Amino acid sequence: MISKKIPHLFYGGDYNPEQWPSEVWGEDIRLMQEAKVNFVSVGIFSWARLQPKEGVFDFAWLDELLDLLHQGGIGVNLATATASPPAWLVRKDPKVLPEDPNGQTYYPGSRQHYCPNSTSYQESSRALVRALAERYGQHPALVSWHVNNEYGCHFPACYCDVCAENFRDWLARRYGRIETLNETWGTAFWSQAYGEWEEIFPPRKMPTHPNPTQLLDYQRFMNESFLRLYKGEVEILRDVTPEMPVNTNFMAGHKPLDYFEWGALQDFTSHDAYPDPKPGEEGEIEGALANDLTRSFNKSVPMVLMEQVSSQVNWRGVNTLKAPGQMRLWSLQAVAHGAEGVLFFQWRASRAGAEKFHGAMVPHVEPAKSRVFQEIKGLGEDLSRLDDVLDSRIRTECGIVLSYENWWALEAGSKPRTFSYFSLLKENYTSLWRENLPVDFVVPGEDLAKYRLLVVPSLYLFRDEWAEWLRDWVHAGGVLVVTFFSGVVNEKEHIHLGGYGRPIRDLLGLWVEEWQPLHDDERVAFRFEESARREEAVYFTEKIHLEGARSIARYTEGPFEESPVLTVNDFGQGKVFYQGARFSADLQREWLGKLADEIGVQAPLKVPEGVELTVRTKGDREFLFCLNHQKETVAFSLGPLRGRDLLTGQEVAESLSLPPFGAAVIEKQGNEVKKEG
Amino acid sequence: MISKKIPHLFYGGDYNPEQWPSEVWGEDIRLMQEAKVNFVSVGIFSWARLQPKEGVFDFAWLDELLDLLHQGGIGVNLATATASPPAWLVRKDPKVLPEDPNGQTYYPGSRQHYCPNSTSYQESSRALVRALAERYGQHPALVSWHVNNEYGCHFPACYCDVCAENFRDWLARRYGRIETLNETWGTAFWSQAYGEWEEIFPPRKMPTHPNPTQLLDYQRFMNESFLRLYKGEVEILRDVTPEMPVNTNFMAGHKPLDYFEWGALQDFTSHDAYPDPKPGEEGEIEGALANDLTRSFNKSVPMVLMEQVSSQVNWRGVNTLKAPGQMRLWSLQAVAHGAEGVLFFQWRASRAGAEKFHGAMVPHVEPAKSRVFQEIKGLGEDLSRLDDVLDSRIRTECGIVLSYENWWALEAGSKPRTFSYFSLLKENYTSLWRENLPVDFVVPGEDLAKYRLLVVPSLYLFRDEWAEWLRDWVHAGGVLVVTFFSGVVNEKEHIHLGGYGRPIRDLLGLWVEEWQPLHDDERVAFRFEESARREEAVYFTEKIHLEGARSIARYTEGPFEESPVLTVNDFGQGKVFYQGARFSADLQREWLGKLADEIGVQAPLKVPEGVELTVRTKGDREFLFCLNHQKETVAFSLGPLRGRDLLTGQEVAESLSLPPFGAAVIEKQGNEVKKEG
Amino acid sequence: MISKKIPHLFYGGDYNPEQWPSEVWGEDIRLMQEAKVNFVSVGIFSWARLQPKEGVFDFAWLDELLDLLHQGGIGVNLATATASPPAWLVRKDPKVLPEDPNGQTYYPGSRQHYCPNSTSYQESSRALVRALAERYGQHPALVSWHVNNEYGCHFPACYCDVCAENFRDWLARRYGRIETLNETWGTAFWSQAYGEWEEIFPPRKMPTHPNPTQLLDYQRFMNESFLRLYKGEVEILRDVTPEMPVNTNFMAGHKPLDYFEWGALQDFTSHDAYPDPKPGEEGEIEGALANDLTRSFNKSVPMVLMEQVSSQVNWRGVNTLKAPGQMRLWSLQAVAHGAEGVLFFQWRASRAGAEKFHGAMVPHVEPAKSRVFQEIKGLGEDLSRLDDVLDSRIRTECGIVLSYENWWALEAGSKPRTFSYFSLLKENYTSLWRENLPVDFVVPGEDLAKYRLLVVPSLYLFRDEWAEWLRDWVHAGGVLVVTFFSGVVNEKEHIHLGGYGRPIRDLLGLWVEEWQPLHDDERVAFRFEESARREEAVYFTEKIHLEGARSIARYTEGPFEESPVLTVNDFGQGKVFYQGARFSADLQREWLGKLADEIGVQAPLKVPEGVELTVRTKGDREFLFCLNHQKETVAFSLGPLRGRDLLTGQEVAESLSLPPFGAAVIEKQGNEVKKEG
Repeated sequence: MISKKIPHLFYGGDYNPEQWPSEVWGEDIRLMQEAKVNFVSVGIFSWARLQPKEGVFDFAWLDELLDLLHQGGIGVNLATATASPPAWLVRKDPKVLPEDPNGQTYYPGSRQHYCPNSTSYQESSRALVRALAERYGQHPALVSWHVNNEYGCHFPACYCDVCAENFRDWLARRYGRIETLNETWGTAFWSQAYGEWEEIFPPRKMPTHPNPTQLLDYQRFMNESFLRLYKGEVEILRDVTPEMPVNTNFMAGHKPLDYFEWGALQDFTSHDAYPDPKPGEEGEIEGALANDLTRSFNKSVPMVLMEQVSSQVNWRGVNTLKAPGQMRLWSLQAVAHGAEGVLFFQWRASRAGAEKFHGAMVPHVEPAKSRVFQEIKGLGEDLSRLDDVLDSRIRTECGIVLSYENWWALEAGSKPRTFSYFSLLKENYTSLWRENLPVDFVVPGEDLAKYRLLVVPSLYLFRDEWAEWLRDWVHAGGVLVVTFFSGVVNEKEHIHLGGYGRPIRDLLGLWVEEWQPLHDDERVAFRFEESARREEAVYFTEKIHLEGARSIARYTEGPFEESPVLTVNDFGQGKVFYQGARFSADLQREWLGKLADEIGVQAPLKVPEGVELTVRTKGDREFLFCLNHQKETVAFSLGPLRGRDLLTGQEVAESLSLPPFGAAVIEKQGNEVKKEG
Repeated sequence: MISKKIPHLFYGGDYNPEQWPSEVWGEDIRLMQEAKVNFVSVGIFSWARLQPKEGVFDFAWLDELLDLLHQGGIGVNLATATASPPAWLVRKDPKVLPEDPNGQTYYPGSRQHYCPNSTSYQESSRALVRALAERYGQHPALVSWHVNNEYGCHFPACYCDVCAENFRDWLARRYGRIETLNETWGTAFWSQAYGEWEEIFPPRKMPTHPNPTQLLDYQRFMNESFLRLYKGEVEILRDVTPEMPVNTNFMAGHKPLDYFEWGALQDFTSHDAYPDPKPGEEGEIEGALANDLTRSFNKSVPMVLMEQVSSQVNWRGVNTLKAPGQMRLWSLQAVAHGAEGVLFFQWRASRAGAEKFHGAMVPHVEPAKSRVFQEIKGLGEDLSRLDDVLDSRIRTECGIVLSYENWWALEAGSKPRTFSYFSLLKENYTSLWRENLPVDFVVPGEDLAKYRLLVVPSLYLFRDEWAEWLRDWVHAGGVLVVTFFSGVVNEKEHIHLGGYGRPIRDLLGLWVEEWQPLHDDERVAFRFEESARREEAVYFTEKIHLEGARSIARYTEGPFEESPVLTVNDFGQGKVFYQGARFSADLQREWLGKLADEIGVQAPLKVPEGVELTVRTKGDREFLFCLNHQKETVAFSLGPLRGRDLLTGQEVAESLSLPPFGAAVIEKQGNEVKKEG
Repeated sequence: MISKKIPHLFYGGDYNPEQWPSEVWGEDIRLMQEAKVNFVSVGIFSWARLQPKEGVFDFAWLDELLDLLHQGGIGVNLATATASPPAWLVRKDPKVLPEDPNGQTYYPGSRQHYCPNSTSYQESSRALVRALAERYGQHPALVSWHVNNEYGCHFPACYCDVCAENFRDWLARRYGRIETLNETWGTAFWSQAYGEWEEIFPPRKMPTHPNPTQLLDYQRFMNESFLRLYKGEVEILRDVTPEMPVNTNFMAGHKPLDYFEWGALQDFTSHDAYPDPKPGEEGEIEGALANDLTRSFNKSVPMVLMEQVSSQVNWRGVNTLKAPGQMRLWSLQAVAHGAEGVLFFQWRASRAGAEKFHGAMVPHVEPAKSRVFQEIKGLGEDLSRLDDVLDSRIRTECGIVLSYENWWALEAGSKPRTFSYFSLLKENYTSLWRENLPVDFVVPGEDLAKYRLLVVPSLYLFRDEWAEWLRDWVHAGGVLVVTFFSGVVNEKEHIHLGGYGRPIRDLLGLWVEEWQPLHDDERVAFRFEESARREEAVYFTEKIHLEGARSIARYTEGPFEESPVLTVNDFGQGKVFYQGARFSADLQREWLGKLADEIGVQAPLKVPEGVELTVRTKGDREFLFCLNHQKETVAFSLGPLRGRDLLTGQEVAESLSLPPFGAAVIEKQGNEVKKEG
């Protein structure tokens, strides 16, 4: 439970009443109550309203608003309002504005037009945070602090002169001596050696491929620059209101910030999820992934779905509407994946501005006549029936390793081919998701005790110490799957010499000599040992030399004909699989699913394709979430399982039928839920 | 008649003899006479020649040229020569150069490199105009003034610091108080509130979606900035030569300028039309549309086709040649749509420079051996036979509403989908064109008395007062067709709350709750009431709630299954149709054609596909233009129609045969031309 | 022989040991000896290492390295190290950094970040060159000077203010009077006349099409700016070491530099060749072409393949590996086309930096276990068997005219269509290559005595004096093929008035009236006289008027129906063919191959498709290179040819079988090699 003030699943959204005359506020409260809303985020983009000019604060409206909400029984997630600096600050110091790698300045008129290293921005934003904390820290409506908003969303990295100076200082602290930097960056290549820190630039526009270590360090530096902003605000909040939960909202597929680092500094994690509901896009997978990612960033605190849309967003070329029922289903999916709250951007659709066509809980049309608002009410009712689920958790036996450093390095260009790390993560995730196996994302170095199957997709940047971390776990019985192009460079972006994969050569029982990347229209045939079926490698293939491992599948053509494509190595009590090529999505699911099954990692039930299952547990209570993502009704056997559907209050037995986009949340009776083979 | 000096259809082109030694000039006059040219535009890009440095004018060459032309019997459309500032002016004041939203300066070396708000440009250009007006205002060759050229063509909007200052002044005048601006722009959203005018920027590059009202106001401001330039020149010309017709040339599909505003300030309208003659592109539709648009921008003055190409342009990736005969046909098409003159860019093909491969009336090869020049002579002969057509007009009963404000707002992004307003206008125009129904474009607020059918495509930005304007006309018997996504915001870009289409909810007899935009690969089936045929909606669909209107067609699948897609509402003596989705081009033509037919709006004859018909009338004389756009000969019955083909002098009766790209201009005898069912 | 110090084919690569600790150097020498390496390029990107700050040189490491190499028996191609300025120089004078046409500065972090007109760069680089020349000019390891590296590779043209000033000076020297510039640039068009030199800009970003002569002159100016750098370095080298060969490496398809001008200033030519080995790309044609181009740039000096990759590059989106054997085959292909040396970028694969995934002779894995290093050793062995080939040359009877001026002008835009000159050159080259006919590229004005067939693809920019040059040769018996869009403008980019092709109208026996360019999806049918087969023109067609020439093929449809598409004109002892359209690649090969055959220009043997043949001759010795580019074994008859395969030492007779990617180098016995019909 995030706060004792709200002993329920959170339900609500961003609330921006400053866009409306105050006569609308009363109706808002009434509609919130009608929809069982209990929690709203206030003030996210209110800096200019709260502080109309330097040194002048206007809190009257917010005083009134918080009182109103409190009287209405609605808790407040109060924003620090620093995500978009006011116009007067830009005028006072134009260096607040950020610059991209081309030296292009970004101007006011939208949002987030600030350089994270701007002193003016830092000082002014902190003054605002302190004023807010002091004024509202003891307000009874206050439930939590919402720090800034979607850090790095539209402007992931600034390259201005101020950033250049900060980068030089950061490098000097990191490396101490310029010689160390030169060695680390490999500046002997292309005549890049630096004699003084002052000679160094951010990786701005340059004639050809940038120095990859310079690039990687800049991504580290920018992550830290934003993190420093976050910490600066949190320090003030903790100082003034030490007990109040703090949080900032993530975006699950967001590359610029190392969310494992950030997650550790949250009292609860949260994220904004906007999968494309276009038929055929399988937005439910993106949604599941987003929830599991966010949950993984800090596994010891609660997780909340901070933003989603009720109907359709406004920023795609074509903004598909969620089909009737789909918004409810995806909301329940968040809970199924561990969310302790389901929130929306935003409460009431704006009349004006750049997001007026972004769906909201209360649309432009009369709520009573609105399909969307009726569904919002229905969802409020549904969530209110799930109080028992609060504080329950997901039990996972499968992990997928995710390293932001690797993400930054792998996609930086100048590689055997261009890589999309996120698509590789997602492909492996999808394979397990389709088998209804719950998954954690795991950062290198994290405790692996609870996992039985760990997948390491293309961990190109591989620190030496990670080898030991994996070795211990496999030795004790873990089953590890490592995929192609792993263990190639260290944290300096220097090659691990002596055969690719060198740091885990013993673990893999092999080394890699060379690569053949494939174009989209290229396939290379292989087959599993003992099978005649033709399989196809895509995207990337490798020449593997066995050194203890056994071949499971071999190429039947191409430059690596007869060489292994998939291997297994016994290591202590465990096993290590190495997959030296990308497979089709279907084959990846097939072999990974089979492997999980063989080691006893199994779904709670056998269900038709398109039905998602998860289990949340609390003590000895178990809640089985059944979600039908199909547009058709599905029915399936429950086997020996008996229980009660919390959404309907009905007992279920023998079989379950779910209408299109239907869901059930079954609390098991007597713990009969057993795994099936 | 634009000028009594030329009691004929204008025929000629841009004439730039300053690119040639003066010995060529004599041959030019001789060839013009051979081709029956009677009107040329002179000096369009001659500023640097006329004023080689500040304060120094050189008119000697132009004196000689105008005398020569006059002696040759050729009238002059004298340009004010301000479309491209000379190099010395840029050197004197580099701020003359314009900047795009990225802060990118555009340099000399091509043309139109000026900021419309540059004081240096404004002062210098006006000094030139005054000098020209005073020197040539009484010259007997002078027929009209050609102000600047294609305003905004290559540089539709400047974002420099000078423009920023002017924009602030413009806003201060428009809104008076900063609070009003804040309310109008909806700056409560995203912390955009302004405390001082000086804090405001043009909508330069920004991190994400710009404030839409800021954007819209900037488009208004830029339109006015250019218009101020135009007015500044015209003021001088009217001062010095109050009787002389003034004009600037339009480009029909040009979005940045509100040509209805501009048209009102022209003594005749004119335009430059360059449809792609590539087979399959149906350039004849673009041509027809361009003529009708320009004619519509000021329906009380004559219209002229100011520029077209004789053969092929030079600025496409592949510049298809007009097929033999096609240049003549498209020239006659302009007359068929009301043009009082047919002109070309340019008279003689340049030897050097960026447009030397742009076709001309006199090509690079010897005129006597040139197919193109022979066709030019033939066209001169044709036009000389059409003197009777002069001062006749097109009678239209169909109108399509076009609002530039709506164009700017609709395509500004952050919408349920991206829209192309022009393609929606063109699709409805094409439907009527294929039925040979003459069409006007109508600006909201214009007198509708003469129209029987009015189509309003996607009038997203809808001012409240427009509702009354439509209501009165429908009440009196008009038949109105409104298409999807209309009546959504007001002129501030604020949502009309209470159901989309709210300002004309009574007129439509319905309101719209929500939208489902479609990807290019998506279709949603519907069928007309009483019909079993499957129809398909594309692009955009809407959930309609009837409030008095009747359904004509309903969805048979999708989120809006069973809801109406097409409706009709009786209103006073008239009817209002609402089309809540886009149809295929064929279906749009079918149902719109059928509707027109049912209300008695009909073509003068039934003719084969690919034959275009128009009628020009003068008093009780009627001229029927028959144009064959097919590459095959076509023949069709004339029914009871009798008359004389002005091009051949032959009487026609019973049937007409037109060769490929052939045309006839039949003056009716005894007014027998009747509409057929 | 380039240097008596190495009486062998050069074998080696770029050697950058400054990236490695000195203990690796010893192993490098040992491995070089193992692979029979005899020549390495040293110091190409070592400026920052050689001169760590202004005025401070550090030669100790290079002293040691050169001694080591000399002791190892390996010659050195010592770089002047000026291709990438050090960080301290940029800090000292930021104007060293170049700017693109948008005013975008390019920053350090990669390489080649210098403006060629920067005085700081010029002075500092020359000081370095002098220091190197003086220190190492007499070093026994020194074999040649490698000046800079790939001039203009990543930054082909700078547009900064310094360049602007230099451009103005260059123009003033070129034209003397501003009036001459105005006439030449055609500034009467679009009001571009200049009154002072100071008013002129480089062709920076502008609103629309730039003045084409301004553009062309800027390309000339930039070519000369880089050439001035080269000459500046060479002047110092020749001053200090007058006998030492100098060279800079070319990139065959590189457009910005006129390599014929550059080639004349080389003691041997060299180039870097990186064809894409992706199956289906036919990289062997790009390789053959690259070698022949470089050989052609100075036909009187030796040619060397300076850079290629052993396995795969790192800069494509997908970097396909050379298949086993393919690296050897393409290396031998270079020798087959005249190369006197085969070198790689680079010797040892980097551990760090932007090119660490670029293949090398010594890869990241242990050399003894590396397929690549084993192939490198094999190639060293192969090359060591080809010493007899040294100083032999290719005999060519076919030439293809290449003009850089034409390249610059033809692709500058504002044409009847966009053109790719290189693809037109390559298409004609490929036609002859597939017939195993050796080809030179010929610059206009070059001695044509030895050629029997000359192809002139689309020589749009045609200087008047070139007509005489061709006329003399054809008159004496040459067979000339001129293709469409030739002879259109002069060197000022002014149209040759009086029918396109005017300067060679007598030679062609025809003139061209107009053009119909075609879209990719358009075809126009034609047929050869006396043939019923349907042929198709693509890309570009022309209306030809015969004036003495005879039609060989005529259009059977389209606007030029019945007009000739291919003609022949007898002229003196020779013939001139004119091809007024582009043909399909197959047809181009068919008719050009047939033409060559008819005039007795023939391959040495008839061989299966995919087998390449070339002959190198030295006095009366002849070496026949047979290269199998197929992935299958091929066998073919040798006819009467007898000889010895230098690679195997075996006698060959009657027939030859080549394995996949196999090669033979047969020295003819008794000169029996005869041409076959």
